Amino acid sequence: MKVEEKQFDLEYINKYASQMTIGNGFFGIRGSQEEDYRNQVRGMFAAGVYNRPLGAESAELVNLPDVIRWEIKIDGEHFSLETMKVLAYERALDLEMGELKRYALIETAQGKKVEVITCRVADQNNLHQAALKVVIKPLTEDCQVDVKTGIDGQQTNFGTQQLVEKELRVFGDDLISASYQTTESKIDIGIAAKFNKAGVFQAKNRRITASFSEKIRKNTSFTLEKIIVLSTSLQQTDPFKKSIAQAQKSVSYTEILEQSMSYWTDFWHQHRITIQGDSSFDQLAMDFAAYHLQIMTPRNDPSVSVGAKGLTGEGYKGHVFWDTEIFILPFFLYQFPEVAKNLLLYRYDRLEGARQKARDYHYQGALFPWESAHTGQEETPKFAALNIKTGTRQEVASAAAEHHISADLAYAVQEYVQATEDQSFLETKGKTLIHETAAFWLSRAVKVDDHLEIHRVIGPDEYTEYIDNNAYTNYLAHYNVALAVKYQAGDPLFLKECQNFLDKLYLPVPNKEQLIPQDDTYLSKPVIDLTTYKERPGSQSILLDYARSEVNELQVSKQADLVMLLYLLPEYFSQPIVSKNLHYYENKTIHDSSLSKAIHAIEACRIQEMEWAYHLFQEACLIDLGPDPHSSDDGIHAASLGALWLAVIFGFSGITVTNGTLSISPRLPSAWEKISFPFIWKNHRLLFVLTKKQIVIKKETKETLPIFVNGDQYQLEKELILERRGK
Amino acid sequence: MKVEEKQFDLEYINKYASQMTIGNGFFGIRGSQEEDYRNQVRGMFAAGVYNRPLGAESAELVNLPDVIRWEIKIDGEHFSLETMKVLAYERALDLEMGELKRYALIETAQGKKVEVITCRVADQNNLHQAALKVVIKPLTEDCQVDVKTGIDGQQTNFGTQQLVEKELRVFGDDLISASYQTTESKIDIGIAAKFNKAGVFQAKNRRITASFSEKIRKNTSFTLEKIIVLSTSLQQTDPFKKSIAQAQKSVSYTEILEQSMSYWTDFWHQHRITIQGDSSFDQLAMDFAAYHLQIMTPRNDPSVSVGAKGLTGEGYKGHVFWDTEIFILPFFLYQFPEVAKNLLLYRYDRLEGARQKARDYHYQGALFPWESAHTGQEETPKFAALNIKTGTRQEVASAAAEHHISADLAYAVQEYVQATEDQSFLETKGKTLIHETAAFWLSRAVKVDDHLEIHRVIGPDEYTEYIDNNAYTNYLAHYNVALAVKYQAGDPLFLKECQNFLDKLYLPVPNKEQLIPQDDTYLSKPVIDLTTYKERPGSQSILLDYARSEVNELQVSKQADLVMLLYLLPEYFSQPIVSKNLHYYENKTIHDSSLSKAIHAIEACRIQEMEWAYHLFQEACLIDLGPDPHSSDDGIHAASLGALWLAVIFGFSGITVTNGTLSISPRLPSAWEKISFPFIWKNHRLLFVLTKKQIVIKKETKETLPIFVNGDQYQLEKELILERRGK
Repeated sequence: MKVEEKQFDLEYINKYASQMTIGNGFFGIRGSQEEDYRNQVRGMFAAGVYNRPLGAESAELVNLPDVIRWEIKIDGEHFSLETMKVLAYERALDLEMGELKRYALIETAQGKKVEVITCRVADQNNLHQAALKVVIKPLTEDCQVDVKTGIDGQQTNFGTQQLVEKELRVFGDDLISASYQTTESKIDIGIAAKFNKAGVFQAKNRRITASFSEKIRKNTSFTLEKIIVLSTSLQQTDPFKKSIAQAQKSVSYTEILEQSMSYWTDFWHQHRITIQGDSSFDQLAMDFAAYHLQIMTPRNDPSVSVGAKGLTGEGYKGHVFWDTEIFILPFFLYQFPEVAKNLLLYRYDRLEGARQKARDYHYQGALFPWESAHTGQEETPKFAALNIKTGTRQEVASAAAEHHISADLAYAVQEYVQATEDQSFLETKGKTLIHETAAFWLSRAVKVDDHLEIHRVIGPDEYTEYIDNNAYTNYLAHYNVALAVKYQAGDPLFLKECQNFLDKLYLPVPNKEQLIPQDDTYLSKPVIDLTTYKERPGSQSILLDYARSEVNELQVSKQADLVMLLYLLPEYFSQPIVSKNLHYYENKTIHDSSLSKAIHAIEACRIQEMEWAYHLFQEACLIDLGPDPHSSDDGIHAASLGALWLAVIFGFSGITVTNGTLSISPRLPSAWEKISFPFIWKNHRLLFVLTKKQIVIKKETKETLPIFVNGDQYQLEKELILERRGK
Repeated sequence: MKVEEKQFDLEYINKYASQMTIGNGFFGIRGSQEEDYRNQVRGMFAAGVYNRPLGAESAELVNLPDVIRWEIKIDGEHFSLETMKVLAYERALDLEMGELKRYALIETAQGKKVEVITCRVADQNNLHQAALKVVIKPLTEDCQVDVKTGIDGQQTNFGTQQLVEKELRVFGDDLISASYQTTESKIDIGIAAKFNKAGVFQAKNRRITASFSEKIRKNTSFTLEKIIVLSTSLQQTDPFKKSIAQAQKSVSYTEILEQSMSYWTDFWHQHRITIQGDSSFDQLAMDFAAYHLQIMTPRNDPSVSVGAKGLTGEGYKGHVFWDTEIFILPFFLYQFPEVAKNLLLYRYDRLEGARQKARDYHYQGALFPWESAHTGQEETPKFAALNIKTGTRQEVASAAAEHHISADLAYAVQEYVQATEDQSFLETKGKTLIHETAAFWLSRAVKVDDHLEIHRVIGPDEYTEYIDNNAYTNYLAHYNVALAVKYQAGDPLFLKECQNFLDKLYLPVPNKEQLIPQDDTYLSKPVIDLTTYKERPGSQSILLDYARSEVNELQVSKQADLVMLLYLLPEYFSQPIVSKNLHYYENKTIHDSSLSKAIHAIEACRIQEMEWAYHLFQEACLIDLGPDPHSSDDGIHAASLGALWLAVIFGFSGITVTNGTLSISPRLPSAWEKISFPFIWKNHRLLFVLTKKQIVIKKETKETLPIFVNGDQYQLEKELILERRGK
């Protein structure tokens, strides 16, 4: 269970930094190298610490002061993997321990061989804490070691300053601390660092450093530990004092590592998907996904949510999209239902922003922002970056038209309520969310002849803008309003209007070729050969050949759109329809979004095309773990990792949850012998063990639980073992 | 005439960057390496472009977007002097051409030998322009060359963001441009860069880049030229358009280099101090000083002045001190009198700030700010950086007490008027400056018994704070008020008060040991051994052993204080008094300020202690050119370079200008055979040629000019040749 780097390569430095992030849902620290290297982007982020810098249209997830830089000198020579003779090197993020560790054996200019080990781990009990360590051991001769490290508030988001310094302090001879405030959102940040030995301190320009110098004998070790405490005013009053007080009583690196190990051991024991089969890569990809899902998501804080890159990078400015509810929330819903609830509470607490957005566009109810940060206002920039050739800016239509997000939230509320039967949430908050989003759709639809339509939207496919009757949007809106009726969320007059909406809303149905049109005009647009673009998914290379407005007029989808609909509402569509449409739309989809392939994989499972499904799944695994050196530079693809979990659970394992019932009909790819995973359903903790021959379902609770297996209903007591017929 | 670096050494990278700045008084570009290296601080600065960043107490000279970075790849390998095998290297700032040129011969990983030459030059006609060039020549095999360069607005002042992006644009296939605005002072900045070939462009996060790729044949050259245009709204409306328009009609690197050569040839011909003797270093030091004085000072812009580091670094936030008028202005006064006038106009135009500061402290007239930037308000921070151990901040007393600056300005006005006989300036502006500063002193003095004293000031020696009757201050205040009477600058009542001040002000006189007390208590304080501190002048190492408050109670001077008085008002003190006091105070002075040693050298000249004088002078030359790798990291010492010129002219050449008369009595150090220099006096351009045997003075104008040589008056026609007696 390790993400490994076998060789130091500057070209991959930022990809590995994203992959090897340590964290705990409160903060994330990128797996940047300890030293500075050309083009390396450092990063520490804390959930919810956004700031709208001067001159900026949107809030950004703040790149916090750097704490992981070690400037190491050996006999006065700067330690660098680029300039020194490196005799051995390896770096690995150990997912079982939550520790990132680097081993380097170098030879100095004078020919001395020296081992340099650096490691770091995020505290999993005290979420404000992380521990760092450096161990330097001369193997052939004594040497002089100098190490400088500190808290560096000169860190910016690519030159954009987010913080002003309030105070830099030292306490005793082993503790440095720094206090900052975000420039606009006025969040106070306190950071303290405690060392295991006395240092010499210096402070200047928002940076405080501690220096350590020792003469080290051959075959003995210089060991320096640095315990970091990060506090913010989002959680605590006077975070500066809190960080110092916490650091003063901090424990050793080993103690923090041990509890991290214990935490992760428990996590893997309780929540791992285990895959036995030909490919250990599949297991690694799932572990990687679960690890990242876990460290990107706040564990017990309803005031924050998950950004598009988690806490691993500055991509998408750390904003929260529909990604969270549709792609990430299910993992938590079926593993940590309380966390799923918190993610919904984040939205509920920002209803006012959604109501305001609806009012701004002259709609009723709640229209959630396409991109959300701390305030709940729309954070999507109105215009894309200036075209440097023409000097014009293209409108970003997402805020104005990508309205399905409101239905997506209602869908997530229903998923949550269905899986948890949390009536209290439903009554106090869920109904309000459903009511307000339904009210939005009532006002959003337009009357055409005797029915209702939804015009000028963008569906999940962002390559078609301002289209009418996007199937995904119409069906989800219908589902959203139906929920209002189901839960009687509103007064009788409102519910009557809902019923009228449900009766009148146009829902695109399969045409004579059995194709459901993605929107009113999609199927009538020209088809082009997408082969070359599909060879580089995610690169948006089609935009090098076609203007966006031209792409808009082709049968080209950026990502799963109609297929998303098939995925989310499986009960609406028969297998032949799914098959026909999946094949058709796969052919038109470049997968330029990371949210796409895993969903296609699930639908391929559902029509039993297992080789194709497995191929799509493996390609989805490569989005962050593949060979492209820059695909994850600005952070891992959070929703894509969530989608991998969805693919195994709802695709290969064949779980479906509809109308309050749990069904399973597994279809393992030929490469897999066995998979097992836990699944929490209506407060029952289930354990599924699936092989090609057998389905085993275990449960610890007493009450009987009805469950459908391969279409037949069973009453699950403690254990259910079914031998499988055929393959 | 070259400042040379023979070997690439990261330890010296920022010192050379300061030394090797190119510029023209409008902008300065640090001599940073083209590539990024650890701890390298890049910098481009434009005169007067200050900004008070968010959360800051003071305005800062803005570190403008970087334009000199070249990212060079040879066969895909990053060009770096740190990681590549460097077979030959040299870098030199050629003072005769104004060009910084680096030559490197490297061997690639594949064993190819490649020459890489980078050079840059500031335009001396069109002050908005600079030219850069890179020439890459494979000597042994063909190779692939990739070069990326651009305009990088991610540059900050050590993480402090000063600029927001307004627009990034490209025009045609060879021009990139960027528009920024300072965050608080709202100065618009336009930068354009024109290339000599077509590039591929990219823009993101306030940075625009152009990329060039070519396959280069063995023994042929890849040559890329980049002409930079910098415009600001301080001089031009719509600087962005102006920069683009200018770049579009820009000429070649060679043309800009040729006119730079022609400009500097003329400069050296007209303004050089030539020294013949044993030490070529002395000549280099003087050329270095003259070069930097010339590029740090605006040539024709009265709205800006000279910061403490010129335009070579961020030190002292680019603020203007008394350094400018007392140490730098004389060079211009006797070489480019119009520039000297502009420096005074900068102050005149900021009289309102000085009046306001006087009012704030309940004084009359004008109290100029100790540190000045664009507005003319006091920019000195009220408190020093927080003490990281105690959490307290020490008051910075300079703004509150370092009042001699107002008299220094009046002194500079008198120097200007005396040397130029510019009656128009005197009548329209000079008198006002003298009047307002005199009025300040009238209100500043306090009555003690039957006389006036000046209490609680800081003299030039900043190690003694809040002392009474600092001799320097009292004499200069007296001189200031006497100027008001001399020029009748004020109404009769005011002039009567001035006369009363002159009659009553206490002027410290030599005591029975012939010592003039630096202040009322100085001579009664304990004396300590300063040997170890004097070994590291400029390091302020005494503050490691003593608290500032303790130093305050010792006979310890940071810098020339009483000796400054002897220097500025030579006619007030006899040679025996100068001798006694110079010896006494030299013994108490650590020279922790760069303004100090050259002044002591001048006074040593005046008492004919030539070996001592020469030793002090050579030490002063080492302030920027010496072996300390970090002494000039944040910029050259502008006033120190001015002081070197003062030392040669007023020290070794023995020129004095008092009461409207010019005198000379040379005393060359034994190492010098001959010195010659031009000197403009009352609109006459004089040329002095001094040897140990002869004094030659030439003049081109017709009118006779009286001049004192070694105490005897002569009437200078076209030429005066005097044989010297003795040594």
